[in-house]
Amino acid sequence: MNETRHRVLEALADGPVSGPALAEALGVSRAAVWKHVEGLRESGFDVESGDDGYRLASVPEFGGAAVAYELGAPFEVEYHDSIPSTNARARDLAAEGATDVVVLADEQTGGRGRLDRAWSSPSGGIWLSLLFRPDAPMAHAPVFTLAAAVAVTRAARGAGVDATIKWPNDVLVDDRKLVGILTEMEGEADRVSWVVVGIGINANVDPAALPSDADPTSLEAERGSPVDRRSFTQRVLEEFDALRQSPETVVDAWREYATTLGRRVGVETPSGTVEGEAVDIEFPGALVVETDTGRVTITAGDCDHLRPV
Amino acid sequence: MNETRHRVLEALADGPVSGPALAEALGVSRAAVWKHVEGLRESGFDVESGDDGYRLASVPEFGGAAVAYELGAPFEVEYHDSIPSTNARARDLAAEGATDVVVLADEQTGGRGRLDRAWSSPSGGIWLSLLFRPDAPMAHAPVFTLAAAVAVTRAARGAGVDATIKWPNDVLVDDRKLVGILTEMEGEADRVSWVVVGIGINANVDPAALPSDADPTSLEAERGSPVDRRSFTQRVLEEFDALRQSPETVVDAWREYATTLGRRVGVETPSGTVEGEAVDIEFPGALVVETDTGRVTITAGDCDHLRPV
Repeated sequence: MNETRHRVLEALADGPVSGPALAEALGVSRAAVWKHVEGLRESGFDVESGDDGYRLASVPEFGGAAVAYELGAPFEVEYHDSIPSTNARARDLAAEGATDVVVLADEQTGGRGRLDRAWSSPSGGIWLSLLFRPDAPMAHAPVFTLAAAVAVTRAARGAGVDATIKWPNDVLVDDRKLVGILTEMEGEADRVSWVVVGIGINANVDPAALPSDADPTSLEAERGSPVDRRSFTQRVLEEFDALRQSPETVVDAWREYATTLGRRVGVETPSGTVEGEAVDIEFPGALVVETDTGRVTITAGDCDHLRPV
Repeated sequence: MNETRHRVLEALADGPVSGPALAEALGVSRAAVWKHVEGLRESGFDVESGDDGYRLASVPEFGGAAVAYELGAPFEVEYHDSIPSTNARARDLAAEGATDVVVLADEQTGGRGRLDRAWSSPSGGIWLSLLFRPDAPMAHAPVFTLAAAVAVTRAARGAGVDATIKWPNDVLVDDRKLVGILTEMEGEADRVSWVVVGIGINANVDPAALPSDADPTSLEAERGSPVDRRSFTQRVLEEFDALRQSPETVVDAWREYATTLGRRVGVETPSGTVEGEAVDIEFPGALVVETDTGRVTITAGDCDHLRPV
C-alpha cells in the first residue's frame, strides 16, 4: 500500500472525515481521495460514506492490505489469493534483490514441505514466506527456523491454542501437526545472502480435508471457532521480527515450548538413526541426544518421538 | 566436447590414422571426420596430416577441450578466455538446474573473494568454479571448502610447490597467498541444493602484478618456471572428485597440510575476536581454539596467524 493510501486509511479509522477535509489534510486533490477510498474498498475495507463524511467500518479478514494495516514489523506484504508456492515466489524475489518481504497466500496449489514432501495448502490457511537478509554466517541460519517456530507458537497460544514445538520445526497440538516450516537459504560460508522461511499454518481449514498421514489439526478445529487470520498473521510477523533481531535469545525461547526435550527420540540422519533421550538444544539449533554410547549433537534430520522404554 | 569428437581425438592420439579408416571405425562420414579434425585444431590441438593419415602432435596448454581431454573426473568443462566471474556463471548454471560442471577461465575481469573482497585474476591463472549437488545437509557444506583446499594443495605439491593450508580456505607458501577459495551454496537445512566452489589459483602470473596487500605468490614464481595448467587443473578436479565422495576423510587430509594448527591465532567472528592456540579442526570444518578461558569452536571468520607470546 502506498504512503498516501495508508494515511487515508488511518484518517478513515479516526473518522468520520469529509472528502474535502481529507484532501486538504493530505495535500492531495479530492479526486485522489476518492480514488484511494475506492482502492481500499476494492481491497475489502468497508468504507462507509454518510452525511458527515467517510469512516472505516471494518477491515477485511485477510489479504495483503489487511495484514499490512497496523502491522508492527517492517515487512512489505505481497498477497495472492492462490499461488503455486509462496517459498518459490520468495526465492524469485530474492533473486531480484528484494528483502523484508512477506509472500502471503490464501491457497497454495503446489505447496511443499521439507525434502520435497507434499504440503496441502487449501483456502482458509495462512501460507506465508518471509524473505530477509540477516547479517550472519550460514552456519547460524538454522536459528531462524527455530525463531519461526517460536513466533507461531506464541501466536497460537495467544489465540488460545496450546501449541508446542517438535524439533526442529514442527508446531504441534497434542502431537497433531498444526504448522510446518521450511527454511531455504543462499550464501557463502561467512555470510548469508538471503533466507526464506516458509510457514504453513493450518488456520481455518478442516483437518479432515488434509492428508491424514501427517495427523493434522488446525487452529479452527482446536479453538472450535475460526481465528482472525489478519491479526494472527500480524502477531507471527511481529514476534518473528523481534526474534530475528536477537538470535541469541531464540534457543532459550524455543526451550520453553519444546515438546521434544526430555523425550525418547529416534532421529534419522545421513549417517544413520540416532536413538536416545533428547536432552538439550544448542545454538543455532542442534539437538543433543543422550544415547547408550554417549552424547550426539545432530544438526539436521527427521525426528520421531518414541514411547518411553 | 561431444562424444564423437572425443573418440576422434582418442584415435588421433593413437595415430596416425587415415580419414577413411577413422570414418569407418566411428561409423560417420569422411566429411564429419574432417569437421571434427578442424574443430580440434580450432580448440588448439595440433593435428598433423601426413601420408599415413592424421595424428595428434600436441595438446593445448589450457582451455576447455584440453582440460576435458583425459580428465579423470566426471565434470563437464565450460571454458572462457575471459569472464567477469566464474562463480557468478556457475550460479547461473545452478539456477538452470546444471550439475557437475566446471567453469574455467584464463582471466576474470570481476573476480571476488570472500565477503565481496576484490580478487585479481589476470590471464595466466587458473580461475575455476565447480558446481555440484552433494547429498548432504547444509551444515556439512563447509567440508567442501576444505576439500578444495586439500585438492589444490596436493596438486601444488605434485608440481613441486610446498603449499600449506590456513584455516579455513587459504592455500599459502611460506605465508604468501597462492590460492583463494570462495564457496557459495543454496538449499534447505536438511539438504544442499547446490554448491559452487570457486578456486582461484595464481598459476603462471607474476606476483608483482597482483595487489600486494594479500602478499601474493604464484606457482610460476615458486617453481621458477611455468606450470602445465592443463594437467594441474586436471589434478585439482580429480583430487576434489575423490574427496567429495568421501567427505568424512576430508578433515584428516586437511590436518596433514594445515599450517594453522598449533599456532596462536586471532579469529574475527560475528561475536568478537577469539584469540588463542588453534588446537584442532572438527568436521565439517570448525576451528577449535584454546583460549585463556576455555575451548571455543568457530564455524566461520577471518583467521590471523599471530606471533607466539
